[in-house]
Amino acid sequence: MDEPARIKLTIAYDGTRYAGWQVQKNDLGVQQVVQEAIARVFPEATPLHGSSRTDTGVHAIGMVGHFDLSRARLKTLPIRKLPLTLNAHLPPDIRVMAAARAANDFNSRFDASGKQYRYFVWNHHAMNPLLVNRAWNVRRKLNVAAMKNAAPLFLGRHDFRSLAATRPYVIEDTVRTLTRCDVKRSGDFFTFIIEGDGFLYKMCRAIVGTLVQVGEGKIAPEDVTAILEGRDRRRAGVNAPACGLVLWKVFYPKARKT
Amino acid sequence: MDEPARIKLTIAYDGTRYAGWQVQKNDLGVQQVVQEAIARVFPEATPLHGSSRTDTGVHAIGMVGHFDLSRARLKTLPIRKLPLTLNAHLPPDIRVMAAARAANDFNSRFDASGKQYRYFVWNHHAMNPLLVNRAWNVRRKLNVAAMKNAAPLFLGRHDFRSLAATRPYVIEDTVRTLTRCDVKRSGDFFTFIIEGDGFLYKMCRAIVGTLVQVGEGKIAPEDVTAILEGRDRRRAGVNAPACGLVLWKVFYPKARKT
Repeated sequence: MDEPARIKLTIAYDGTRYAGWQVQKNDLGVQQVVQEAIARVFPEATPLHGSSRTDTGVHAIGMVGHFDLSRARLKTLPIRKLPLTLNAHLPPDIRVMAAARAANDFNSRFDASGKQYRYFVWNHHAMNPLLVNRAWNVRRKLNVAAMKNAAPLFLGRHDFRSLAATRPYVIEDTVRTLTRCDVKRSGDFFTFIIEGDGFLYKMCRAIVGTLVQVGEGKIAPEDVTAILEGRDRRRAGVNAPACGLVLWKVFYPKARKT
Repeated sequence: MDEPARIKLTIAYDGTRYAGWQVQKNDLGVQQVVQEAIARVFPEATPLHGSSRTDTGVHAIGMVGHFDLSRARLKTLPIRKLPLTLNAHLPPDIRVMAAARAANDFNSRFDASGKQYRYFVWNHHAMNPLLVNRAWNVRRKLNVAAMKNAAPLFLGRHDFRSLAATRPYVIEDTVRTLTRCDVKRSGDFFTFIIEGDGFLYKMCRAIVGTLVQVGEGKIAPEDVTAILEGRDRRRAGVNAPACGLVLWKVFYPKARKT
């Protein structure tokens, strides 16, 4: 392709029907659906790369992806029309929320400086029908004060090995820095806001699962430090189910001029 | 039935699949589904009456209903187990959130002293896939200051004829008192909180539709008073679509002892 233009897309999706973000061999990933829509509009486009790999059933409101198309094409189809054009080729559970030109070496995954996830819990003996596939229904009454005490213990730079799904074949650096871990309550509805420079596999869901078990009185707030220091996955709480998790935002260092 | 016990139910539902609350001749109403679940558990129960008639596609988190069952039955099935028991016979888009004994003459419709509705708008050129069937997607950028200026003009006692769907065959008192009309914004997500002693047919959706047209610059905030005083439905805004509306709460005067 002569004179490629790198495009940054912001993508939102309801993950319920999909086997996560990534292109799968046997199941449908969101990435594949978006890539096919791009290919229909821009046959010359390069493959779509994403900032994050979300699991089956996990949602996104701010997934970021990048791909290249020919610069000449942007003269006939201005970038501001790109979301509308791509959305015409996408199912209603996937939407391109924004499109922008990026630097030619912009990489949605490796340039990301941080991410924010949000996790939603409906704490009532009966599930809220308006939150099916959007929140985890925790039936036992949560002690919000205990959760608020425990949440800040996750903040800072830690080896988060005890909060990652074990992938024995992967040798990786398990040190991450958490910059935000908030618990907010509005009646029976809880929001967990978790921000950090990076996340291990299922780490977010293990943090929420641990905090919920603190709220249920199954884990003492002060044990969170010991769980982190123990670096043993079996000591932490359950993994919160996928349906309550949303990739909310991906952060990048101040945008450079293209 | 000997010694009937009146039961007050709080019911939540996703209205997407239903032709509103009320029992319909050809379509399925939520009331019918709940009534059938009650009949399965309590064959002796009287029909279920509801506090409000919601339209096709409108949701509820706090619909209130009442019915009678035999007092003897409550000795074998305590009232606190009633939501769980009924929910076992209900689809996931309808849930009994609470059950309580009420005075024998409690009437969920006629005893209601007020209601709160909430209406949700997603204000972005692309719909949020996590809000499909939960919010109205308004694409044009809304002027939140203009809407906040207009909202209080609906407050107080007015003849709301200009904001009700015309039902020529019904002669009714169209005077209502609005006690709350708030517009809240969180990014691209807007919440309208509307509370009053009663609502005419489609009145809530006409108020939101009018406020949204104020936000779009199609109606001047100061025209709201003229719209109300004109008592002419054609002057007000469009009806906001059903999918964004939730019957949030029904108020009753301080509960009497049973």
